[in-house]
Amino acid sequence: MEHTIAAISTATGEAGIGIVRMSGLTSFEIGKKIFKPIKEIDDKNLENRTLRYGHIYDDDKLIDEVLIAFMKGPNTYTREDIVEIYTHGGIISVKKVLDLTLKNGAKIAEKGEFTKRAFLNGRLDLSQAEAVIDMIKAKTDKAYEASINQLEGSLKKDIKKYRDGLLNLLAHVEYSINFTEDGQEELDNSVIIKEGEEILEGLKKLYNSSNRGKIIRDGINTTIIGKPNVGKSSLLNNLAKVNKAIVTDIPGTTRDIIEEYIDIDGVALKISDTAGIRDTDDIVEKIGVDRSLDFAQSADLIIAIFDLSKELDEEDKIVLDLLKGRKAIVLLNKDDLESKLDIDSLNIDENIPVIRISIKNNKGIDKLEETISKMFLQGEIISSNETLVTNIRHQDILGRAINHLESSLNDMKLNIPIDCVEVDLRDSWEILGEITGETIEDDVLDKIFKDFCIGK
Amino acid sequence: MEHTIAAISTATGEAGIGIVRMSGLTSFEIGKKIFKPIKEIDDKNLENRTLRYGHIYDDDKLIDEVLIAFMKGPNTYTREDIVEIYTHGGIISVKKVLDLTLKNGAKIAEKGEFTKRAFLNGRLDLSQAEAVIDMIKAKTDKAYEASINQLEGSLKKDIKKYRDGLLNLLAHVEYSINFTEDGQEELDNSVIIKEGEEILEGLKKLYNSSNRGKIIRDGINTTIIGKPNVGKSSLLNNLAKVNKAIVTDIPGTTRDIIEEYIDIDGVALKISDTAGIRDTDDIVEKIGVDRSLDFAQSADLIIAIFDLSKELDEEDKIVLDLLKGRKAIVLLNKDDLESKLDIDSLNIDENIPVIRISIKNNKGIDKLEETISKMFLQGEIISSNETLVTNIRHQDILGRAINHLESSLNDMKLNIPIDCVEVDLRDSWEILGEITGETIEDDVLDKIFKDFCIGK
Repeated sequence: MEHTIAAISTATGEAGIGIVRMSGLTSFEIGKKIFKPIKEIDDKNLENRTLRYGHIYDDDKLIDEVLIAFMKGPNTYTREDIVEIYTHGGIISVKKVLDLTLKNGAKIAEKGEFTKRAFLNGRLDLSQAEAVIDMIKAKTDKAYEASINQLEGSLKKDIKKYRDGLLNLLAHVEYSINFTEDGQEELDNSVIIKEGEEILEGLKKLYNSSNRGKIIRDGINTTIIGKPNVGKSSLLNNLAKVNKAIVTDIPGTTRDIIEEYIDIDGVALKISDTAGIRDTDDIVEKIGVDRSLDFAQSADLIIAIFDLSKELDEEDKIVLDLLKGRKAIVLLNKDDLESKLDIDSLNIDENIPVIRISIKNNKGIDKLEETISKMFLQGEIISSNETLVTNIRHQDILGRAINHLESSLNDMKLNIPIDCVEVDLRDSWEILGEITGETIEDDVLDKIFKDFCIGK
Repeated sequence: MEHTIAAISTATGEAGIGIVRMSGLTSFEIGKKIFKPIKEIDDKNLENRTLRYGHIYDDDKLIDEVLIAFMKGPNTYTREDIVEIYTHGGIISVKKVLDLTLKNGAKIAEKGEFTKRAFLNGRLDLSQAEAVIDMIKAKTDKAYEASINQLEGSLKKDIKKYRDGLLNLLAHVEYSINFTEDGQEELDNSVIIKEGEEILEGLKKLYNSSNRGKIIRDGINTTIIGKPNVGKSSLLNNLAKVNKAIVTDIPGTTRDIIEEYIDIDGVALKISDTAGIRDTDDIVEKIGVDRSLDFAQSADLIIAIFDLSKELDEEDKIVLDLLKGRKAIVLLNKDDLESKLDIDSLNIDENIPVIRISIKNNKGIDKLEETISKMFLQGEIISSNETLVTNIRHQDILGRAINHLESSLNDMKLNIPIDCVEVDLRDSWEILGEITGETIEDDVLDKIFKDFCIGK
């Protein structure tokens, strides 16, 4: 790489330790210039990955008391020379140390640039690089496990296996082409077709895992809607009490997020707390209601609550309108009170599960959780040995590779000339390489790393 | 210490790297149990502060891919054996690794417990330990500089000098006591008095620095009040544009804080954005107004804005009421328009500066900044060599030490029997030791470290 990059690699906030990280040709030079060790050390000792204690100086001006590590490439994350400076936490120290590295010639790292270099220098394949950011963003244990498996190479290994298989088929096909050109008879395709169908089956299994995979990785964007006082907040509190997601478990994280995260069977339910839906003249409240309507439009799942103890009214009808054509669950709350609601009049689409609950008496909540789990995970248990495709990019690539392989196999079965078959087979092989990054365009790469955080 | 402590030492959030840190007798043992290096290494190599690459396992279950450093005491922050594990950032990984250390016998560290151990094991004196948390919490460069000077021992050195001086005086006094008991004549006190007065002067200088020091460390809690549309938000925006504090400069920090931080001459102006004060029936708005009134009650500084282009009304009178007996600045805004306000009718206390401004035309803002700087820093320039007392605890201790020393010197001048003098002199010496922690009660210590963050 042409220049040395630097960034703050820890989260922003009051904390014990912050890390400023540099990678590139001049990182050692910059590190040595700004760091004054307590004990004088020779260069050889600096470069052996040992944590050294000393001070960071901007000329004569003391910046911080730190630990520092010089890590000689290529046995590093980026395969380049890396310097990590462990500063006091908080806001100012890391910022000052970062600014000092920039003043001395480092350039501020782009999002994901350390990992991008790790990929470009062959330390990780692209599926592993993508797993890194998934690990960092994981909201549940399951999401984390899926991503660390991917980092350890589960998907990489599978893709390699199928690409090797396709390459093998290609060799056979090319051999056939030469063979027929020699004037001999057409070869029997049945062996090739059998092998191709095995690969196809494997790819389809991977593809199918992505429905669950995406939900596990990204969680389910959920909105609870209903008119005021129907029990929206009570439901949220009730769900959160038992199924608190890890994110909300750590002091100081909740205020960072507008949404409440709830962990249902390892899947994150991201619930946006919304205002009760009603017709209102109050401007502030109206903004809240409009926001609720927006959320409902973009949600993966709508949980709509109605009040069994009251007759259907105009506000309920607005809520019902929002359910049309959407993935939704209807809750009939206040099952403990005398029922006044004519359920038939709700006229609910038969695809939408309807559950009678009493949030007050904690009745029916387990049924709700079951239903959510069934809707999104089809009740399947995920084995830890199984490769799970969690990324929509990978799903898309698999879909395209499957199409080409399928059409190539169909052509073979129809005895279409073998050189037509070859094109699809080769396309399938090439396309799969986009998952591991062996065949990929620069702009796609840029897009992938834009999702990263700074400093990784 | 009796047990090994563990904590997450980095801030919570999506980031490249997180750190889990252990300190104590069994930290190496726990670290070796959960870490599997890529290359097998012998114990000797583990303990030499080298960053090792490998995996964290909970028995057979992979937790994360990490770097780890084993640091043998006593050349460590706590003087104990320390293990630091550099995990992937984000929420889950650090939490899982921390949980694993706890499962293997570590106890979760209390706030500031690493630094407390550093203090108890003699690595830092108490003033330095307090500087650590001040560095982490610093909001402006000046606050940061004051705290790193303190960490480097500026206050410790000064206090040691004065305590040595007092001890020397005590020796003289005790010698005098013995001398007079031998039946000899009374000694001349003038030398002792002269030395005592030099110490007294030094202590008073330190004490006086704390007015500025506290402002530099903690910032000025400021509320802008005024009736609706008088220019509160415009003023805030105008001040923020030019004087953006570092905290608000870093993406992701602003949303953490309710207040806006503005940097005026290195001093943080913490401005709570408040609702316009008016009599209202709207419940939501009323809550906002009540909050404004609360803020005004607890603020260090009230900036009250009035509209020059309008006559005084009832709402202005509520604002005026809030200024009584408070540190405040009155701004007369809309100086660009025709003046309709009878300024005399405001009847403003003569201690409160009144400034005519036009926020729209950016007129008078510099005057406001000057006034704030003058009110709180008395316009003094702070030299970087000067020891600045920034901590109210230190100020209080200095005040008490000064009182005892003063009364002892007065007694000497009145030729009060020397053994009475001695008690005050000794008290002064003892009290000063509370700053460095040489003489301190356990409950005071606990209180100090409660202000720390976890993991430091």
